[in-house]
Amino acid sequence: MKILNSIKDVRAEIKQARKNSKSIGMVPTMGYLHEGHLSLVKRAREENNIVIVSIFVNPTQFGPDEDYVAYPRDIERDSRLVEGEGADIVFAPEVNEMYPDGCSTYVEVEGNITKKLCGASRPGHFKGVTTIVTKLFNIITPDRAYFGQKDAQQVAVIEKMVKDLCFDIEIVPCPIIREEDGLAKSSRNMYLNEKERKAATILSKALFNVKEIIGKGEINPSKIEKFIVDTINTEALTDIDYVEIVNARTLESIRKIKGDVLIALAVKIGKARLIDNIRLEA
Amino acid sequence: MKILNSIKDVRAEIKQARKNSKSIGMVPTMGYLHEGHLSLVKRAREENNIVIVSIFVNPTQFGPDEDYVAYPRDIERDSRLVEGEGADIVFAPEVNEMYPDGCSTYVEVEGNITKKLCGASRPGHFKGVTTIVTKLFNIITPDRAYFGQKDAQQVAVIEKMVKDLCFDIEIVPCPIIREEDGLAKSSRNMYLNEKERKAATILSKALFNVKEIIGKGEINPSKIEKFIVDTINTEALTDIDYVEIVNARTLESIRKIKGDVLIALAVKIGKARLIDNIRLEA
Repeated sequence: MKILNSIKDVRAEIKQARKNSKSIGMVPTMGYLHEGHLSLVKRAREENNIVIVSIFVNPTQFGPDEDYVAYPRDIERDSRLVEGEGADIVFAPEVNEMYPDGCSTYVEVEGNITKKLCGASRPGHFKGVTTIVTKLFNIITPDRAYFGQKDAQQVAVIEKMVKDLCFDIEIVPCPIIREEDGLAKSSRNMYLNEKERKAATILSKALFNVKEIIGKGEINPSKIEKFIVDTINTEALTDIDYVEIVNARTLESIRKIKGDVLIALAVKIGKARLIDNIRLEA
Repeated sequence: MKILNSIKDVRAEIKQARKNSKSIGMVPTMGYLHEGHLSLVKRAREENNIVIVSIFVNPTQFGPDEDYVAYPRDIERDSRLVEGEGADIVFAPEVNEMYPDGCSTYVEVEGNITKKLCGASRPGHFKGVTTIVTKLFNIITPDRAYFGQKDAQQVAVIEKMVKDLCFDIEIVPCPIIREEDGLAKSSRNMYLNEKERKAATILSKALFNVKEIIGKGEINPSKIEKFIVDTINTEALTDIDYVEIVNARTLESIRKIKGDVLIALAVKIGKARLIDNIRLEA
């Protein structure tokens, strides 16, 4: 496996791969990898000749009061892990490589899709995401790109961007990977102390219960939202940012549980802001 | 020569060309072609295996009070002309093909480079340009793209976008093509009546005179700007939008004539808003 830091070196590899008619699968990450990321690499490995994992903590998707500096980094461990999954290339650029001095071009998906849910409490976040993903797409020119469904809004935004800007890239959303007690795997779980870690299981518990309730016939989103809020509030350490039930592609509110439904939430516990969701066809 | 209207059909051609290791040159236009455009096609023909000319009057780069509806269109004549220059493909999509319902993703180069000169009187114009050019780049994936230096600010903005977003595309700026009396060729010259057409020659005259003055040693931009303004104002039919002397790449103001210098102007004459410029190394 090659670890490359420069755009030029990645391009040379891509050109070679294209010359040999190899398909390219890409997994964009911010590093500090867990089994969620590795499931993406696995899937990419199954479906492509060449697998490239990018590791880049993207400054433009963090707000001024967010955890850009504190965000955990361990590129050596990450490289070992993705090599174990059979990746061919790790692309791990420095900030200056991706944002050289004077860089001022941004890609933005406008509208509710980036303004609601996480967009409401993280203004500018998705603009940072779509900008860095565009750059990575232009450098790596993948046939397929793999994203975790845990970041459900990110998946919806990237799919919209790809369609709107005519990228010839297949976006492959992959299922959420969870700890044994249900907590969605996340690099930010490391911010939790023991008590907070225990409290955090309430998020997935609420979502799993809701799945049952819907299975029994409940179709009123307001009632379901209230149920989730009430469940989460039984844990004193939780501070709810949002609980929303929306169309999974457009993120517009829905009046009843029907179609491609996303039930998403964000909750602060201690220093961590955790997100989780379930997506269901009803 | 093929005339294609759908993204799907263009993609099929591109895939075939890439399979055969053919290089692709692209000339993005809004149609109603003149010798300026044709010089771009000629140059693309010399430097690439496959030449694709896009013809699309892009609604998002026109302001609400601008001439989007009136903008001249003649796709049959355009197609004959580019076929005469040896183009392989004309891509002429409908508006719905490039901007389907709900399309809401934009590419924007922020900063002075899009706010000054034409950006000041045409807010949103360059956002429309960079968005449509990104889409066309993603569809056609050219090795080289050809732009007329007449739209000097557009060239600077596109070059910056390509660098910032890591497009692997060479931007080739091509010289301004002029009528015999010096007027820069433009699809918008057709808006001029006989008197206005005559008055319009003052623009290039002022720029040519300035070249002489600089040749004789004048290095003060303010004096040169004043000279141009005074020259243009000798024609009663002219209404100056701007006259500016800037660095040709950054479009930042300069204190003396040195380096890569752009002397650019925009002037309204009758219904037409005309632009012209000279670029010089000093």
